[in-house]
Amino acid sequence: MIIEKKMKAAILIIGDEILGGSTLDTNSHFAAGLLRAHNFELQNILTVADKADSIKTGLDILFSFADIVISTGGLGPTKDDITKHVITEYFGTQLVFNEDVYENLSQRFAKRGLKVNELTKTQAFVPESAEIIQNPVGTAPVFWMENKNNGKVLITLPGVPGETRFLLEGAILPRLKSRFQTGHVVQRSIHTVGIAESSLAMKLEEVDEKIEAANNPNEFYKLAYLPTLNQVKLQITGIGNDEIQIRNQIDVFLEEIEKRAHEYIFGYDQDVFAAHIGQILLDRKATLSTAESCTGGYLAHQITSVTGSANYYHGTIVSYDNEVKMKQLGVKKETLDKYGAVSEETCKEMLEGALKAFGTTYAIATTGIAGPTGDVEGKPIGTIWIGVASEYKMVTKRFQFDRNRLENIHLFAITSLDLLRRFVLGYKI
Amino acid sequence: MIIEKKMKAAILIIGDEILGGSTLDTNSHFAAGLLRAHNFELQNILTVADKADSIKTGLDILFSFADIVISTGGLGPTKDDITKHVITEYFGTQLVFNEDVYENLSQRFAKRGLKVNELTKTQAFVPESAEIIQNPVGTAPVFWMENKNNGKVLITLPGVPGETRFLLEGAILPRLKSRFQTGHVVQRSIHTVGIAESSLAMKLEEVDEKIEAANNPNEFYKLAYLPTLNQVKLQITGIGNDEIQIRNQIDVFLEEIEKRAHEYIFGYDQDVFAAHIGQILLDRKATLSTAESCTGGYLAHQITSVTGSANYYHGTIVSYDNEVKMKQLGVKKETLDKYGAVSEETCKEMLEGALKAFGTTYAIATTGIAGPTGDVEGKPIGTIWIGVASEYKMVTKRFQFDRNRLENIHLFAITSLDLLRRFVLGYKI
Repeated sequence: MIIEKKMKAAILIIGDEILGGSTLDTNSHFAAGLLRAHNFELQNILTVADKADSIKTGLDILFSFADIVISTGGLGPTKDDITKHVITEYFGTQLVFNEDVYENLSQRFAKRGLKVNELTKTQAFVPESAEIIQNPVGTAPVFWMENKNNGKVLITLPGVPGETRFLLEGAILPRLKSRFQTGHVVQRSIHTVGIAESSLAMKLEEVDEKIEAANNPNEFYKLAYLPTLNQVKLQITGIGNDEIQIRNQIDVFLEEIEKRAHEYIFGYDQDVFAAHIGQILLDRKATLSTAESCTGGYLAHQITSVTGSANYYHGTIVSYDNEVKMKQLGVKKETLDKYGAVSEETCKEMLEGALKAFGTTYAIATTGIAGPTGDVEGKPIGTIWIGVASEYKMVTKRFQFDRNRLENIHLFAITSLDLLRRFVLGYKI
Repeated sequence: MIIEKKMKAAILIIGDEILGGSTLDTNSHFAAGLLRAHNFELQNILTVADKADSIKTGLDILFSFADIVISTGGLGPTKDDITKHVITEYFGTQLVFNEDVYENLSQRFAKRGLKVNELTKTQAFVPESAEIIQNPVGTAPVFWMENKNNGKVLITLPGVPGETRFLLEGAILPRLKSRFQTGHVVQRSIHTVGIAESSLAMKLEEVDEKIEAANNPNEFYKLAYLPTLNQVKLQITGIGNDEIQIRNQIDVFLEEIEKRAHEYIFGYDQDVFAAHIGQILLDRKATLSTAESCTGGYLAHQITSVTGSANYYHGTIVSYDNEVKMKQLGVKKETLDKYGAVSEETCKEMLEGALKAFGTTYAIATTGIAGPTGDVEGKPIGTIWIGVASEYKMVTKRFQFDRNRLENIHLFAITSLDLLRRFVLGYKI
């Protein structure tokens, strides 16, 4: 039975800033999800101070339970970073200068017109017995250190979250999977938008039961709901020895979900919402522009976070000032005076202005109140009017959210893109 | 000596959901900040599974280092919650029915018009040797268990973040402080922008030495470098018995840092970069607009993420299309043809266009290549021209970064705001 073959892993977080309460550790959460998804059993997460004794004791403790220890932090070039020195001693080896690491650093610095300074150069000294994994996104290489006596492995990662994640997903996990046999894990995701987790769960009650019923001694299936603001990711995990069999079974479940929730589904696996919107536009050879007030450029940022968005997105006018609404978007002074900036009427004129200014197939307009101040009678914080228009048709809709400023702005943007999606695909609005 | 008088604490997180990667633990971060602020030395944070063996081993490990162990999680009334049973055995005591806890539960349920059900009633069974701290916000009381032989203390808290925080701040911390003598901790931060961690460290070598030299049996000082993309937070911690003395000493260090790095410093403690930019503008009764290409609205989003930014920010025109650059910003066709969109010449005309369109005191323009595609001869991915202008003066500068698309966009925006800062404050560009 595959569950018993599971390799045991542990995470060692090295960082005074975590113990001191100034930094929230999110690396271990990310690593935990990844390890779980690939059938490694995470036994413990231990946070220790940037002190040699603490790190050594931490390693002793974790290696007494686990086959694999992944550490993060303490790999910078400054004096307070001591992980490299401690593990070098712990594994009874010594630091040696590594030309490849130095070359990698030099090239990356040269690209930015810089020379590697003396302090950064110290990053090229590495434990002699370590396997070196180059870090294309930072200055600290990864060390993969194997205990020859028991085959146990220590992998040291830098603690900067962007680097940790990039290296874990791209370099460490594939290597762990090829080094340790872990059975086959298949994980597929369906992304939904514009439906609450609880409503979705009610729609999928029957599928949930079917998934549970499919479990047997050789196969394990699970459906998880992973909600973020206005989106829910459905994640099906299957574990077993016959990969094809698991894939086929999961495909059946995916179809069952599609049957019940198709109008909320925008993608699978690595799909990203804004990229899906882009694809809808590309498929129709259509173009898009926006006119933003309360989203303050964040809607444009969501759209332009996608590579190649210049092929369908022409731009935005953010009017954080009524003068700009009038001058750049042609919103009438009487409209602003009579109905206010946050109104259906202003939203409609912003849409007309955007279509005229940018000459695109579609336009989106947003006008609302992100908070925490700025509410007026009848328009509480979190109110937004969103409009979508083409040359032939225009819809506007009022929404109400109740989060903090940045979350409201995010919800405004996602809801705007969802309104465009429903508009273009012909769903009820 | 105060360092030796410091009480050593540890946190035990009990929760399969943390190890499985489905829940991000934020309780330990909250507790860490609180402990640090009150001079308890947090030695370790350990996460273990909801299994009796794991919990017992975790307690053994943590008590071997710490005087105080605070656990969270596993105190609910359902079958998977086993913390209470494990610690009862661990401390060699037994579960007894506690009238006060039951009374408290009954009253809280009665307020909501409910009766205590059988499952919830089990919450009134408590370890006989424990001191009971009532929980006004949940069903699980807190157990304070003291080892009579060595005076070490275990405090068990529920894992629901709202309850954990409420109980820690309101009930546990005051009790810890009266039970254990602790000194004072002062922590101050300085935020810098536009200088690499290593360059900053070299500038501050002397200060670093002074800080280390200030350590004495009664006082402890430490400087930490906490880098994010294009920003470095410097954090000075001081611990001792005389709070005024520590504050004064830290002020001296802050001045020393300011002397050496003043032009990179934008704030202290809770200050946020975009808000600092806002304050600079407000102080001068100045207004700002932007003309963005490669930042795609993210620069506007950074600026408008600040509450009240409508008081100085008028808006942006994002031109993701050359037509828009010409029509909305007045960039000349010949300029685009001859120099390309990513050029100093285009950047300058975008600046002129923004000042004209928005009529603001200052304007920022960005044109570059965020990647991962779109590089041209002589303009690799990560190239950007940033310009800042007022009616009287204009500067443009080329920068080169080497991150992924979203990180490049973030670096572009932060660097743009930094260029504005240097422009307005009169620093060399």
